[in-house]
Amino acid sequence: MPGSEPPAEAFTEDALLGGRVRLTQPREGFRAALDPVLLAAFIPARPGERVLEAGCGSGAAFLCLAARVPGVAVQAVERDAEMAALARRNAEANGAAAMIHAADIRTPPALPRCDHAFANPPYWPGGTPSPQPRRRDAAHEDAALEDWVAMLARPLRHLGTLTLVLPAGRFAAAVAAMRGVGCGAVRLLPLWPRTGVAAKRVLVQARRGGRGADEVLPGLVLHAADGSFTPAAEAVLRGGAALP
Amino acid sequence: MPGSEPPAEAFTEDALLGGRVRLTQPREGFRAALDPVLLAAFIPARPGERVLEAGCGSGAAFLCLAARVPGVAVQAVERDAEMAALARRNAEANGAAAMIHAADIRTPPALPRCDHAFANPPYWPGGTPSPQPRRRDAAHEDAALEDWVAMLARPLRHLGTLTLVLPAGRFAAAVAAMRGVGCGAVRLLPLWPRTGVAAKRVLVQARRGGRGADEVLPGLVLHAADGSFTPAAEAVLRGGAALP
Repeated sequence: MPGSEPPAEAFTEDALLGGRVRLTQPREGFRAALDPVLLAAFIPARPGERVLEAGCGSGAAFLCLAARVPGVAVQAVERDAEMAALARRNAEANGAAAMIHAADIRTPPALPRCDHAFANPPYWPGGTPSPQPRRRDAAHEDAALEDWVAMLARPLRHLGTLTLVLPAGRFAAAVAAMRGVGCGAVRLLPLWPRTGVAAKRVLVQARRGGRGADEVLPGLVLHAADGSFTPAAEAVLRGGAALP
Repeated sequence: MPGSEPPAEAFTEDALLGGRVRLTQPREGFRAALDPVLLAAFIPARPGERVLEAGCGSGAAFLCLAARVPGVAVQAVERDAEMAALARRNAEANGAAAMIHAADIRTPPALPRCDHAFANPPYWPGGTPSPQPRRRDAAHEDAALEDWVAMLARPLRHLGTLTLVLPAGRFAAAVAAMRGVGCGAVRLLPLWPRTGVAAKRVLVQARRGGRGADEVLPGLVLHAADGSFTPAAEAVLRGGAALP
């Protein structure tokens, strides 16, 4: 039925965390890779806590978190209504308690108080926009990093965590945005492609109202010299271990 | 002659950079250790450029920089008049072109335009003030980190670098302060005590008016498992190599 629903081959079924999470996602566009899995591993949620994800896409990050932390209650916001519906189906298929709101992060619905808030915000990986519409839409930074941080901070309880995964090239902007909304005690966890090279991605976490010391953690080396994942990376990506 | 000058045994003569820098400094109080040497190694100065150091103490950082980069012209500000005089004598003894101003960084003299500005700002290493007066004075953070950054940024040319060495626990405050005075393209170089543990100190560098990507560099591991310096640390501390 052309026009009503994309054909089945437009989607793939992927396994995350060694098969503990089954993820249906579009074959084209922004597909979940390492970032949402590493993001989820860095959220210090405890069973029963409430979490918020902004820009959840098909749900990879919150599904990985829910697989590691039993009974976590998820609220998520996704602008693309089709992706929001897909995230809803993925949550059901994985038995995760999640409420998905189809909304722009700049005009979110009323959200309940939460213990942890996180996002893998969009960015332009290169210089030129992708010709693929969904990819272009997801990557466009028309909502600035400050908007993402402000939206995440708003429902966060005192000393709740706000976490982003993002290119290392934006780490200072993320730190400044977090401090700008009263989040402190910033923890930086660099994601090193290999030993001895600059980080390509970083995890940045701050606590609302936090006044403690910042931390620069040793981080995670993703690949060995032969290109395979390191044992530490395997433990997180396949074994479902927490970071750090 | 009591009262006129401290006795000679109140000072020590130390060798930095494998003997290329001879430093006279007080036996008591804040003594140059690793931080000023690592700070100097991270300044991307070229021969003939003008640099500014705030809170230079006895001069360890600018002397290490002058020893590595021929013909660098130094302006330095030090609040403690006795330390400023000592820095002046150390500059002469090492043949470094340096003008030392005895002044508070919040009320600095008129300073010429500079290419690079840097500091090892004071901080409380523990909780309680030291009973030793000079140590207490140097460590007291009555000039906030923001004051140090603002003072350093003022005479800096467009795209000139502003660099701090400081405890990792203040890295986010430093990043925010630098961005707050229009410095960007922030580079973070963690100083790891050993492999696999959180950084205790970091080097943070930004460029005035910089808009490029931030960087999280692999950093420097200071000690091997047996407590000795790593070859990479030796190359900087004894060999006078630049960072990174």
